[in-house]
Amino acid sequence: MNEIIYHIDPAAEDLKDPVMIVGLPGVGHVGKFVADHLVEALGAQKIIEIYSEHFPPQVIVGEDSTVTLVGNRVYLARTEKTDILILAGDSQSTDPAGHYSLCETYIGFASQFKVKRIFTLGGYPTGVVNAENYVIGAVNNIEIIESLKEKGIKFNPSEPPGGIVGASGLILAFAKFRGIDAACLMGTTTGYIADPQSSKVLLEKLCGILEIGVDFASLDEKIKDMEQIVEKIKDSVNGEEFEEYGDRYATDEDLNYFG
Amino acid sequence: MNEIIYHIDPAAEDLKDPVMIVGLPGVGHVGKFVADHLVEALGAQKIIEIYSEHFPPQVIVGEDSTVTLVGNRVYLARTEKTDILILAGDSQSTDPAGHYSLCETYIGFASQFKVKRIFTLGGYPTGVVNAENYVIGAVNNIEIIESLKEKGIKFNPSEPPGGIVGASGLILAFAKFRGIDAACLMGTTTGYIADPQSSKVLLEKLCGILEIGVDFASLDEKIKDMEQIVEKIKDSVNGEEFEEYGDRYATDEDLNYFG
Amino acid sequence: MNEIIYHIDPAAEDLKDPVMIVGLPGVGHVGKFVADHLVEALGAQKIIEIYSEHFPPQVIVGEDSTVTLVGNRVYLARTEKTDILILAGDSQSTDPAGHYSLCETYIGFASQFKVKRIFTLGGYPTGVVNAENYVIGAVNNIEIIESLKEKGIKFNPSEPPGGIVGASGLILAFAKFRGIDAACLMGTTTGYIADPQSSKVLLEKLCGILEIGVDFASLDEKIKDMEQIVEKIKDSVNGEEFEEYGDRYATDEDLNYFG
Amino acid sequence: MNEIIYHIDPAAEDLKDPVMIVGLPGVGHVGKFVADHLVEALGAQKIIEIYSEHFPPQVIVGEDSTVTLVGNRVYLARTEKTDILILAGDSQSTDPAGHYSLCETYIGFASQFKVKRIFTLGGYPTGVVNAENYVIGAVNNIEIIESLKEKGIKFNPSEPPGGIVGASGLILAFAKFRGIDAACLMGTTTGYIADPQSSKVLLEKLCGILEIGVDFASLDEKIKDMEQIVEKIKDSVNGEEFEEYGDRYATDEDLNYFG
Repeated sequence: MNEIIYHIDPAAEDLKDPVMIVGLPGVGHVGKFVADHLVEALGAQKIIEIYSEHFPPQVIVGEDSTVTLVGNRVYLARTEKTDILILAGDSQSTDPAGHYSLCETYIGFASQFKVKRIFTLGGYPTGVVNAENYVIGAVNNIEIIESLKEKGIKFNPSEPPGGIVGASGLILAFAKFRGIDAACLMGTTTGYIADPQSSKVLLEKLCGILEIGVDFASLDEKIKDMEQIVEKIKDSVNGEEFEEYGDRYATDEDLNYFG
Repeated sequence: MNEIIYHIDPAAEDLKDPVMIVGLPGVGHVGKFVADHLVEALGAQKIIEIYSEHFPPQVIVGEDSTVTLVGNRVYLARTEKTDILILAGDSQSTDPAGHYSLCETYIGFASQFKVKRIFTLGGYPTGVVNAENYVIGAVNNIEIIESLKEKGIKFNPSEPPGGIVGASGLILAFAKFRGIDAACLMGTTTGYIADPQSSKVLLEKLCGILEIGVDFASLDEKIKDMEQIVEKIKDSVNGEEFEEYGDRYATDEDLNYFG
Repeated sequence: MNEIIYHIDPAAEDLKDPVMIVGLPGVGHVGKFVADHLVEALGAQKIIEIYSEHFPPQVIVGEDSTVTLVGNRVYLARTEKTDILILAGDSQSTDPAGHYSLCETYIGFASQFKVKRIFTLGGYPTGVVNAENYVIGAVNNIEIIESLKEKGIKFNPSEPPGGIVGASGLILAFAKFRGIDAACLMGTTTGYIADPQSSKVLLEKLCGILEIGVDFASLDEKIKDMEQIVEKIKDSVNGEEFEEYGDRYATDEDLNYFG
Repeated sequence: MNEIIYHIDPAAEDLKDPVMIVGLPGVGHVGKFVADHLVEALGAQKIIEIYSEHFPPQVIVGEDSTVTLVGNRVYLARTEKTDILILAGDSQSTDPAGHYSLCETYIGFASQFKVKRIFTLGGYPTGVVNAENYVIGAVNNIEIIESLKEKGIKFNPSEPPGGIVGASGLILAFAKFRGIDAACLMGTTTGYIADPQSSKVLLEKLCGILEIGVDFASLDEKIKDMEQIVEKIKDSVNGEEFEEYGDRYATDEDLNYFG
């Protein structure tokens, strides 16, 4: 089963300098937090739903006890200078081949809407706690590096050393095949826990690139929540309280803080 | 290999207010016990057989030494007020994608027979021993919650926190795509062993919803069997007797009490 | 890649009361030893080669340093009363779905050659060392049990309790769909090591059923080899010698004695 | 997604006595080092790119921060006597069935370019440290053994005992189906770490067979690097330094020395 539900007709839409943002679950949920926050902060409208047998065979139960099939969604936010497509959602592929199939689908949306620039968002695990957060980049076109450096993105040779796994990487490669410029922006993070602080730094850089302003309130709330969790962890010697808090948060908001 | 064998013609049948019950193997076999019991207690007739390469490559050997291919089956029970289709059987999909494929098949049966309501049955693992059994629900249409609450089904926000995995969840989502109201009814259970007691509580609620009466004799027998097993487990310090009993029961009746 | 190479034309052949024997790798290699021995002892001719992406991606290197792709083969042995098709080879499917696909292929051969009886051969792990070997059966048609009992096959209710996994089981089920009588004959074995002794007992029973006589020499040799290996294992305290012997045998004759 | 990008037209090319060399990642990276070295030393031109959903869903980040999709490539080196196709790249299939699919693709290239001889390269793990390196062979045509022996390739009965897994083996089998002579040449190696020394010995033999001369400089450099690493390992008691060096090298040159 692969099902795409369009709420608007890509052929009929004439978007203004369309850019696509991709923030799916991954390292520290850094990318997912940014995409989800953008959807909320910009009041973006859901325009496409994607369901696939490559996602886990699972439904999510909402606050009102109604179920939602695990899937990803494309949202459209119309801002002054640019129209922003945001790909966000619940899951990446459960099998290697599914990543290829799904990313073909995603890049197809970019083509349909005549997107000229794509930014995939992710976390870059450093293993270092309490380090300063920054954003490193990788691109599918060497010519866009300079402009991103000007906006504060760092570029280090052959970094990340293990390459980029999953949608954040594949979309760059597939975009190149279609002649669409794309960059992967990765917020540094410990790699151990969900990291809304890294997401905030990444979001600030992204806003600079897109020349948009967004409210950071709900992200700041997540950061405070995580700080309290981490404080509790430090107080707890045997780690049992950690687990308890993890569960509370995981269930609280459909977000796995310990992904 | 995917093979569907119809013993009756869905197009030719005109069912009375048809409802579909789904009880496949899962947590504590809570749903499977209820479906199997309903088939027996209502004298339901086997109308469809489903075989699939997504099931384990395995045959079951019966009392008479003849083999049966692992598969699922749809039974039809004609009761006074309503005609009940019961989906029961040996297995769920062995791979994630197979769940999607099989649930498409299952929901296709619901469409063919013009089913208007579906109840998928399962267990809800609480990890708590000796707690009172109750039934929690999740739905694909918020409008059916009230009527289920009246019948004693509990609804808790975002519960189960991990969502619903497998056929019990997917069928709700697929039913929604086809405009069929569906609820998942989950009997609370420890999650450690097969739990016919939870099945009985779930069956009682289901009978109330369907306005049918069934004999509970064979389910009561299973409960007594399990109580004896648990008693033995308590007596046994090193757990070796446990295993021995588990084996006896597993082979006795083609039921895995320790699923 | 699925490739079937026919060395004879099934449509053009008119076999005499054709029966099919299936002996593929499995528990204790009991079935494989019997099929391989029959091919040799009856001077059977290779008539079909089966290669498939469901087999391991591997070639075997022979005595003469030439490679053979992992696959299965059908051999034809013409005896006085009956023509015997023997399915033997290197592997079963590496994935669950592949078993279904391959067994469809195998049963297709049975149909093409108008086979009326199939015997799949396997081992039945008892976990008991030094027990007397016997052969238990399961069938796809209750009517053939009596005649098999007369030939010394035992039938115990619901045994094996875990059913029959893989080709030995599926072929029975698929044969039933095509109206071909089939039995699975399982030689009891410890389940820990390759067991040519169990294979010999199974072969004796099979010869009685097929009313053929075969030389047991090469199987007796394998039995003597295994007895020496087991003796060495008993002498060895730390088990290191065991490994050494296992290696020698595994490489010696392309047979894994410790499967 | 399976995508083949041709930079030249196989049908239009008329190669001189074309031979194909296959050196993909595997045991000790012995074959990969040789193929990569040949591409560089012979100034071979990239003529085909192969991308596939059977490869890991991953991009590699280069020195200049641009990404490259994981894939394999065919290079063409024109030498005096013979035109050499070199299949080299980043990965083998991630799933068993993918090996079959990809090797069909690879053998298709050999057919398109009318290749008459194929040499697949690999490592043969002996588990022995500091042993003398030699090259053993396996073939798909017994008639080519003598000429390879004359060039210093050893042939031992049924070696490697476990057969040949992956592209190096399958390509031999598939080549046989198409009537193309092929040999697998395996450099002995410990099996524990990347082994450029084994690659050098293998390359020397291969150059003898192909009657070509190549510069060994960059391979000698890799050997020296590895000697230093191994020396450090010996000095280090707790093995922590080992890891550190491994990381440096893995990231340094997009080569995993510890594959």
